[in-house]
Amino acid sequence: MFDIISFGEAMIRLSTTDYKRIEQADLFKLSVGGGELNVAVGTARLGLKSAWMSLLPEGLLGGLVRNKIMETGVDTSLIKFSGRGRMGLYFVEFGASPRRSKVIYDRKLSSISLIEESDFNFKEILKTRVYHVSGITPALSEGCKRATGESLKYAKENGAIVSFDVNYREKLWSESEAQKCLIPLMDYVDILITTEEDTERVFKIKGKNYYEVAEKLMKEFSFKIVAITLRENISVLRNNWTAIAYDGHKFYNDKKYELELVDRFGGGDSFSAGFIFGYLTENKDIEKAVKYGNAFSVLKQTNPTDFNWANLEEVKSLLAQKSLRVQR
Amino acid sequence: MFDIISFGEAMIRLSTTDYKRIEQADLFKLSVGGGELNVAVGTARLGLKSAWMSLLPEGLLGGLVRNKIMETGVDTSLIKFSGRGRMGLYFVEFGASPRRSKVIYDRKLSSISLIEESDFNFKEILKTRVYHVSGITPALSEGCKRATGESLKYAKENGAIVSFDVNYREKLWSESEAQKCLIPLMDYVDILITTEEDTERVFKIKGKNYYEVAEKLMKEFSFKIVAITLRENISVLRNNWTAIAYDGHKFYNDKKYELELVDRFGGGDSFSAGFIFGYLTENKDIEKAVKYGNAFSVLKQTNPTDFNWANLEEVKSLLAQKSLRVQR
Amino acid sequence: MFDIISFGEAMIRLSTTDYKRIEQADLFKLSVGGGELNVAVGTARLGLKSAWMSLLPEGLLGGLVRNKIMETGVDTSLIKFSGRGRMGLYFVEFGASPRRSKVIYDRKLSSISLIEESDFNFKEILKTRVYHVSGITPALSEGCKRATGESLKYAKENGAIVSFDVNYREKLWSESEAQKCLIPLMDYVDILITTEEDTERVFKIKGKNYYEVAEKLMKEFSFKIVAITLRENISVLRNNWTAIAYDGHKFYNDKKYELELVDRFGGGDSFSAGFIFGYLTENKDIEKAVKYGNAFSVLKQTNPTDFNWANLEEVKSLLAQKSLRVQR
Amino acid sequence: MFDIISFGEAMIRLSTTDYKRIEQADLFKLSVGGGELNVAVGTARLGLKSAWMSLLPEGLLGGLVRNKIMETGVDTSLIKFSGRGRMGLYFVEFGASPRRSKVIYDRKLSSISLIEESDFNFKEILKTRVYHVSGITPALSEGCKRATGESLKYAKENGAIVSFDVNYREKLWSESEAQKCLIPLMDYVDILITTEEDTERVFKIKGKNYYEVAEKLMKEFSFKIVAITLRENISVLRNNWTAIAYDGHKFYNDKKYELELVDRFGGGDSFSAGFIFGYLTENKDIEKAVKYGNAFSVLKQTNPTDFNWANLEEVKSLLAQKSLRVQR
Amino acid sequence: MFDIISFGEAMIRLSTTDYKRIEQADLFKLSVGGGELNVAVGTARLGLKSAWMSLLPEGLLGGLVRNKIMETGVDTSLIKFSGRGRMGLYFVEFGASPRRSKVIYDRKLSSISLIEESDFNFKEILKTRVYHVSGITPALSEGCKRATGESLKYAKENGAIVSFDVNYREKLWSESEAQKCLIPLMDYVDILITTEEDTERVFKIKGKNYYEVAEKLMKEFSFKIVAITLRENISVLRNNWTAIAYDGHKFYNDKKYELELVDRFGGGDSFSAGFIFGYLTENKDIEKAVKYGNAFSVLKQTNPTDFNWANLEEVKSLLAQKSLRVQR
Amino acid sequence: MFDIISFGEAMIRLSTTDYKRIEQADLFKLSVGGGELNVAVGTARLGLKSAWMSLLPEGLLGGLVRNKIMETGVDTSLIKFSGRGRMGLYFVEFGASPRRSKVIYDRKLSSISLIEESDFNFKEILKTRVYHVSGITPALSEGCKRATGESLKYAKENGAIVSFDVNYREKLWSESEAQKCLIPLMDYVDILITTEEDTERVFKIKGKNYYEVAEKLMKEFSFKIVAITLRENISVLRNNWTAIAYDGHKFYNDKKYELELVDRFGGGDSFSAGFIFGYLTENKDIEKAVKYGNAFSVLKQTNPTDFNWANLEEVKSLLAQKSLRVQR
Repeated sequence: MFDIISFGEAMIRLSTTDYKRIEQADLFKLSVGGGELNVAVGTARLGLKSAWMSLLPEGLLGGLVRNKIMETGVDTSLIKFSGRGRMGLYFVEFGASPRRSKVIYDRKLSSISLIEESDFNFKEILKTRVYHVSGITPALSEGCKRATGESLKYAKENGAIVSFDVNYREKLWSESEAQKCLIPLMDYVDILITTEEDTERVFKIKGKNYYEVAEKLMKEFSFKIVAITLRENISVLRNNWTAIAYDGHKFYNDKKYELELVDRFGGGDSFSAGFIFGYLTENKDIEKAVKYGNAFSVLKQTNPTDFNWANLEEVKSLLAQKSLRVQR
Repeated sequence: MFDIISFGEAMIRLSTTDYKRIEQADLFKLSVGGGELNVAVGTARLGLKSAWMSLLPEGLLGGLVRNKIMETGVDTSLIKFSGRGRMGLYFVEFGASPRRSKVIYDRKLSSISLIEESDFNFKEILKTRVYHVSGITPALSEGCKRATGESLKYAKENGAIVSFDVNYREKLWSESEAQKCLIPLMDYVDILITTEEDTERVFKIKGKNYYEVAEKLMKEFSFKIVAITLRENISVLRNNWTAIAYDGHKFYNDKKYELELVDRFGGGDSFSAGFIFGYLTENKDIEKAVKYGNAFSVLKQTNPTDFNWANLEEVKSLLAQKSLRVQR
Repeated sequence: MFDIISFGEAMIRLSTTDYKRIEQADLFKLSVGGGELNVAVGTARLGLKSAWMSLLPEGLLGGLVRNKIMETGVDTSLIKFSGRGRMGLYFVEFGASPRRSKVIYDRKLSSISLIEESDFNFKEILKTRVYHVSGITPALSEGCKRATGESLKYAKENGAIVSFDVNYREKLWSESEAQKCLIPLMDYVDILITTEEDTERVFKIKGKNYYEVAEKLMKEFSFKIVAITLRENISVLRNNWTAIAYDGHKFYNDKKYELELVDRFGGGDSFSAGFIFGYLTENKDIEKAVKYGNAFSVLKQTNPTDFNWANLEEVKSLLAQKSLRVQR
Repeated sequence: MFDIISFGEAMIRLSTTDYKRIEQADLFKLSVGGGELNVAVGTARLGLKSAWMSLLPEGLLGGLVRNKIMETGVDTSLIKFSGRGRMGLYFVEFGASPRRSKVIYDRKLSSISLIEESDFNFKEILKTRVYHVSGITPALSEGCKRATGESLKYAKENGAIVSFDVNYREKLWSESEAQKCLIPLMDYVDILITTEEDTERVFKIKGKNYYEVAEKLMKEFSFKIVAITLRENISVLRNNWTAIAYDGHKFYNDKKYELELVDRFGGGDSFSAGFIFGYLTENKDIEKAVKYGNAFSVLKQTNPTDFNWANLEEVKSLLAQKSLRVQR
Repeated sequence: MFDIISFGEAMIRLSTTDYKRIEQADLFKLSVGGGELNVAVGTARLGLKSAWMSLLPEGLLGGLVRNKIMETGVDTSLIKFSGRGRMGLYFVEFGASPRRSKVIYDRKLSSISLIEESDFNFKEILKTRVYHVSGITPALSEGCKRATGESLKYAKENGAIVSFDVNYREKLWSESEAQKCLIPLMDYVDILITTEEDTERVFKIKGKNYYEVAEKLMKEFSFKIVAITLRENISVLRNNWTAIAYDGHKFYNDKKYELELVDRFGGGDSFSAGFIFGYLTENKDIEKAVKYGNAFSVLKQTNPTDFNWANLEEVKSLLAQKSLRVQR
Repeated sequence: MFDIISFGEAMIRLSTTDYKRIEQADLFKLSVGGGELNVAVGTARLGLKSAWMSLLPEGLLGGLVRNKIMETGVDTSLIKFSGRGRMGLYFVEFGASPRRSKVIYDRKLSSISLIEESDFNFKEILKTRVYHVSGITPALSEGCKRATGESLKYAKENGAIVSFDVNYREKLWSESEAQKCLIPLMDYVDILITTEEDTERVFKIKGKNYYEVAEKLMKEFSFKIVAITLRENISVLRNNWTAIAYDGHKFYNDKKYELELVDRFGGGDSFSAGFIFGYLTENKDIEKAVKYGNAFSVLKQTNPTDFNWANLEEVKSLLAQKSLRVQR
């Protein structure tokens, strides 16, 4: 039995070097990413038995992606190599104030978007302590919409804790499509991870601050926990980061971290991974879960690639850190 | 009026570094290529007024490709930026004996494959001394098949010399599909460029050597000139290269070049470019056209990227070259 | 007829990697730059029909520079390839506080500095809506001094709007030489682009702020518009940027941008390009011209190389920008 | 139960770029290698359930090595992270005729060399179809000598097929030390993999060719199979490669491959991996085992790093290969 | 006679690129560093006749290190190439807030740690104006402890000014070991360079600020000068730097520099180098020595590698600097 | 007293990466070279006390070149930093058959070409066992012509062995200019190093093979030794290399080496260095001198940059080498 299974798309990420614009590129750095995959990677790096369920195209590109995933310790036995579809890609150019970073997705016809009912027997597979998926997966295709719903249902039936990150992507679907699809799925969700903005766009819920937003979400749905992350864009290269969680009774806060951003991609996913890890290993202590989530997230944002190359010892060390000097 | 217009697809080429396999890649070198585009680039580099007609997707990736093409001097006013489709890609890993180089195409849904009748008014556009297209373009989609046929017809009507490179690609269509499509198009073709193997696969014409193949092609169709290129794979990194041409009366031969391959991609296209350049500028002297074609081709095969960065002076210098010493 | 022609020197720029000092260098990144060339590039990138007039040495280095210019869409038909002189170079090492960035010029005997009267028939060539030149060109040699004067005269006679960037370079000439040469040329200038410091050094005009400087310049000369750019060096890697313009009646201000510098070189030239673009395309609306100038300048300062790889859509998007988040 | 377990040392390999000598280096490419590890990697890449047993130092360097191993699909549950010892390293500079490639080992005090009796319960662990070790492991330290002996004993007792690669390293021990240690261990060995030279140095067995050497080895010891690999150094960058096997009854030959070497390190280990794979999956068909071994070995020698990034499909494709053209 | 001799260890430094974590590394940038070596390099770069005394292993790695040292102008005639021991290494990953930079030392069994009495005749060798060593050298091994003591004694006897940087490294020895070893050595020291923290850890001397610490040090020991450096970690990438000196009569202060850190390693050593240079060349003017020390230190922190690639002219220019603009 | 002093120009070499043509370059690898400098470097690397006499421009570029020279162990006390002139450069693109490698010189106005009589007191300076110069130095300018003549005179008077490499460069002067200048200088020369082709172009001496050429040279001039190097260009990347020497009595031959070229630049200079080294250290044994010269030359041709990074031990090892296997 796995500690966590996540379900979603992986893409090859191609990013320019040295703040080059895509139009002037001559070289791309290659890495791999994907919201749910990043959560599987993060929990594996922290020591959980973690698997990622998905489809990849047969051949060298699918093999490349599988290798990069194996490198992190994620179990790859739930990956199905398929003759259908292609490898999704996304292109990144990193910004500096006042130019924002930019992402171009090239994920049409990806293997997972062509998922068929026979690909996964969710009832059998989803025997796991936590099942995690985000709002990106159902947005990929009708097949993915169906599969997300079914998988959530079976995970729940099998007794898993269901974790869901809203992750609204306007390039994939409209707010109303997202709303229509996601609201029914919320019935299966135990832990909702979101931002103020996504909450407004998808659930039409607003509040004067994130405490109020969390309260309203909790009122509207039957979550066990709502976690809301908060990023302040001081500049393109300097951000503040924190998050809260709410269990219907109490708010769990954490300090605000000041970041010198190296690579913000996957920062939210590392929060999810750290939160789930803390929740599972610290006896459902939500306060610790939030702290692990934030610390793991901010460490991620200082290493290149979507994946988090920090380990548990470093998370603990950051939680106790007193100085920013070189560590010898 | 242009000296030459070519019509076809451009792709971003992503190749690994230092003979790395794709499965172990961490970096991709980016360049741009495409059979007909390479011919436009080659002729522009040699000094002709050369244009490339195609569709590219709007946005940074289309802009990137346009920039790389402008860098070579090709006229880009016949490129249409389209909201339809994506940027085609291909991945390359370079081999060394006994491992062959490998190409993975990712060109589904490319903008040009979604071409519509209203995109180009061929009758108006195709006022040019030479019109060049290859067997890849009609293989991309039904729309491209139609457009290739029409464009050839109008180019011919407008008085252009029509040049056609067979370029059979088995990943795109079957031999019988190719045959069915291409044979009728041969009526418009003045200069056919092919290999022994492609001739057999597409036209079912075999001979005991390329002289005989050329003769049979000439007998079957109404070409003015048939040119057949010949590559010998001594090893993956050492090849011999030559070509002949036949005008129904006489065979035009050239020496055989011994190559230390840097990048063989686009080698055939550079032959076409050099041949067309020689034919146009040397008073239809086929012997010189063959020599220019071969020299330009082998120079191309010693520089990275599909494009040919040699210039006319270097072609002439190679034709007169006596030694392989450093040129100071 | 071109929208804009600029006249000046291009150099190959060789910059060290990763903040390395030149004395420890093992690799140089290569790009191309030059004040007036950068303006031609910027206006071409924004969509104007833009040409750059200059001399380049025959051979591979001249070809390299031409290629990099063609890549941006600038028309290169006004470049003359010459057997006289060499390719100018400049070396850059990027600083970090408190170490300033450093430039070493190696432009002696450049082809353009050996310009002869017969090289360009300015009267014929300078049929253009805008003619742009800076104070660098006349400082290069006596021949360039003569050519600058003549070109300004003919441009004016031909009805062009004349734009002039003071751009004082103390390595090229003394303040008094500059003063003696430039003051008479001001008669031809419609749009003067300068800084407070350059104004003081070249025209001996000081004011208590740039408004007063602009007023005094306008009083002393017969410009239509004076634009003054202002850079605040918060640190070596963080700058503020803004500019004003004055038409003798009204001051046109813009917001102050906070920059995380990637590459400040060519920032002033991109202001000129954006200003000229806005002036030409927005019906001589100076307020919009200033805004385009600043936005285009600050975008430039976030991409490597002297050239500006932003496009018009991005300028407009920046003018409307509300957040510094990733753009997906 | 694993298909194969191997036991030995891993080192970080640091190699210079572009044929640079170590004395002029400014950059090192990092990879991971080790004789027995390479065999585990090779068999995993071919599809076997493969594990590598060893000690790595706690901390980031041990983690780095583990990650690179996981990337290949090798099971890492038999790695023990230890507070004893350091990460072994080796430095490589690649040669070109007549300069040979050079390796500098820096493996003193490596964690595995400080192995203790309590580290591994071989009797429990070594439940596997094949157990593979080479002559390097016992040469590392007295502890390793003891552990190698014990592990062979228990593997044999547990019914594993024992595979042993002689791999004599003169930097680690003298010929007589090797002889004294290895001869008794041969009692446990089923499949011996060696070269003519190593056989002479370690076992003092010579023959007029490798057939005779194989016969003498078979006579002297109780192996089931002897495989002898043969490399001909045509030049530093061009080698020929083949191997034979002998089962006491029959010699199994294969063609001689002509190689354009990219990275010869790990070539022998890939032969072992391919041989073992073939032997296990093709019903103990030794002829096929030799063919798989050679094909897998020569593919390895065309990719950078000690690890083999080819897959089973490519091995089969090479066995059927007719041409050296690009594979599209 | 040398102006300065320093004595200590050199290591090859391997640092990841682009803020990569070590666990995800694929490339290491190579440079050379070591506390006392960095001081020799700094003083040589500033124009002093400077030598570094040490042992390096025979072979290519020792040669590589020697070459990198020669590149800076340090005299290498006091390096002894030894068959004993290995080349020490250290691995660096650069941090960004809130992740600190991290160093992993791999210096066990380094050649200098195996120093023997017969290696250097200190009495003969140490004829120099200044002799510099730090608290790292005696911490390396018992042999180094003995050699440090002896070398200090003979340097003093020979009339050298003795400079000592406390440089406490907890990975090498405990505070009490350091205390026990270093306190007796202080008798030989003329110039002590330290930080508040090191003073407390090694000498158990605390004060309410660094003035008081300096006074207490001066009272306890018989130094001629105490210099205390102060680094404020605003963030991982932004630091403030300054230092004071005290001669028992007067405090010598300097401005506080705001740094954008490129590479903080060797920053303290460059202070020592600048201080010693100023002291020797400016007639023992301590105020100037402090100013040179700080300016040279902060310049170092803006160039990659431990070595300081600034020169005397740049130090003087920084002392007079008024702006952070590009220097053309 | 030095073992050898050489006199000539140094240039920064900028070479493209990965066989790129200059017209497509985006990066230049930087190194330093120059005929006589390369000889000083080679002899220093082999262990001689070697100095290089020249002028370099003041500033960072001159400092960069000095640093790279110091890295090799060459004494730099005879370098004069001058306010006159610039740093010479040369650009390299590496070829592959049939495209030859190409060099573009940019050495006009180099500091050494502006040499003045007062720059060096040759009589004082040239106290050395060997003085080496090549035909490039007098070709640089009239000043260099004068200085070469004077330096040869004083070196001879001071009792040095004078070594001269003809090194004819047609870009610098015509054959008749070279002849007129060089023939009188031959009176001072003890060891002449040349090729058959240079001998014909400069001295108008031809022979049916290099033995006859050596005899004729010896007859015409009063050399002690004539050495003639021979390179066969099998292909651009594969060469054969050997050399002979003749002392008027006997021919000294060596084997012919088959090379896989990495970087042929400086190959001839390394022959000179090895020859001089052997002659000086092996008791004027010309046979050994030739062998050292060839072995050192071919090793050089397998490492990047003009400088030779091999050492004496490797030369000796090559002379005894029996196999091309990896050296562990």
